[in-house]
Amino acid sequence: MSYCVGILVDEGLALVSDSRTNAGIDRVSTFQKTCVFARPGERVFGLLCAGNLSITQSVTSILSEDLGSGDPKRDLYAAPNTFEAARIVGAAVRNVHQTDGEALRQHDVDFNASFIFGGQIKGRNLRLFQLYAAGNFIEATRDTPYLQIGEIKYGKPILDRIITPGISLVDAAKCALISFDSTMRSNVSVGPPIDVMLYRRDSVEVGMRVRLEERDAYLQTIHRLWGGALQKAFYDTVPNPDWSV
Amino acid sequence: MSYCVGILVDEGLALVSDSRTNAGIDRVSTFQKTCVFARPGERVFGLLCAGNLSITQSVTSILSEDLGSGDPKRDLYAAPNTFEAARIVGAAVRNVHQTDGEALRQHDVDFNASFIFGGQIKGRNLRLFQLYAAGNFIEATRDTPYLQIGEIKYGKPILDRIITPGISLVDAAKCALISFDSTMRSNVSVGPPIDVMLYRRDSVEVGMRVRLEERDAYLQTIHRLWGGALQKAFYDTVPNPDWSV
Repeated sequence: MSYCVGILVDEGLALVSDSRTNAGIDRVSTFQKTCVFARPGERVFGLLCAGNLSITQSVTSILSEDLGSGDPKRDLYAAPNTFEAARIVGAAVRNVHQTDGEALRQHDVDFNASFIFGGQIKGRNLRLFQLYAAGNFIEATRDTPYLQIGEIKYGKPILDRIITPGISLVDAAKCALISFDSTMRSNVSVGPPIDVMLYRRDSVEVGMRVRLEERDAYLQTIHRLWGGALQKAFYDTVPNPDWSV
Repeated sequence: MSYCVGILVDEGLALVSDSRTNAGIDRVSTFQKTCVFARPGERVFGLLCAGNLSITQSVTSILSEDLGSGDPKRDLYAAPNTFEAARIVGAAVRNVHQTDGEALRQHDVDFNASFIFGGQIKGRNLRLFQLYAAGNFIEATRDTPYLQIGEIKYGKPILDRIITPGISLVDAAKCALISFDSTMRSNVSVGPPIDVMLYRRDSVEVGMRVRLEERDAYLQTIHRLWGGALQKAFYDTVPNPDWSV
């Protein structure tokens, strides 16, 4: 399994992914699930992948191979806007489905892949999309400013409580990391290193990319303090019911 | 979907269930998912159900019909211990599978049902089990003192942080309710009323049963205070990373 989150706030975009891949429980590997396609000063796109690794790697390979071809239907560097860029990602997913879908079906393997894609072209809006295995997609809005793929449930409650368009980009990243901490504590199929990309709106530069390894001091701080904070909140904030048994 | 939790602590047993049932998103109903089978002073059992309502209701009907038959293989009141009682529940699940399984399969309906069963017979151990659709089961231990069925993921992180065998029975129930609050906030297929049963170890009496309706004051207190507590913990306890972008 995987876990990836994209958060769109007024200040910009946070993209966060884990990097654990497993084929069965005895075949666990590390693969980066964040791809960046950028021409600094002109456009910056980030792509997060979850699902069958052969599918998602094929998609990113196709997108990489087509970079610079100049075809606005295939080349992320030639897309006129981020919506058309998302369509290019969707077309790459359909390309893989056309090639591999039937063979996977014959082996009873689901065509399981999902993606978060976001970014900005100079002078256009910063946008964030979630793509499904059929290549169709939805877009984050001010009402729903974050999107998740993969093992999404454990980490959703904290996002639901904290994420609004008005919080800072760093707070958005911090909240994503707490969401990852909760997920990793409850599910071993999601694991570090955690890749973080932060993009400041209208900068048209890859703002910050950092990989947090398992022993990263900040990840460990979150793990230690958040557990304690929840326990304190549990005992100090919410009164007991007046039940006796 | 459903959500049910059973928590076994030194003081006793907490069984908590939601009561939302849906067949498609436009057919939502309320059904109690907690059943109590008790002969106060002699034995107390509680059963929580999740999955296909026709299966789970058939199981509870079979168990109810067989009460008092005196057959130690079918009658929960005749079971010599809680392990054999859990086997009786498993046998009822297999009975329904034998009757309905093939017809459901022909209609492409999964035989989807899971159960939490716990209780105590006077002079024996208080025990807690989780049963699968095949009628097999696992038991809660001191290492893993809680069991969940249904829509389990949203509410698992808070259980993982708080539940230990040493916490009080009321704290266990409060933690379960926070787990339900997180689940209901993130997933509309789980909803109130919430049924709570608390059993004090060795009492061999149904300790407390309460149904918390949507507007219940304590549920609303949890909803309001826990959200605020998480926000406060987020901003006050965990420092920001020293990232600039």
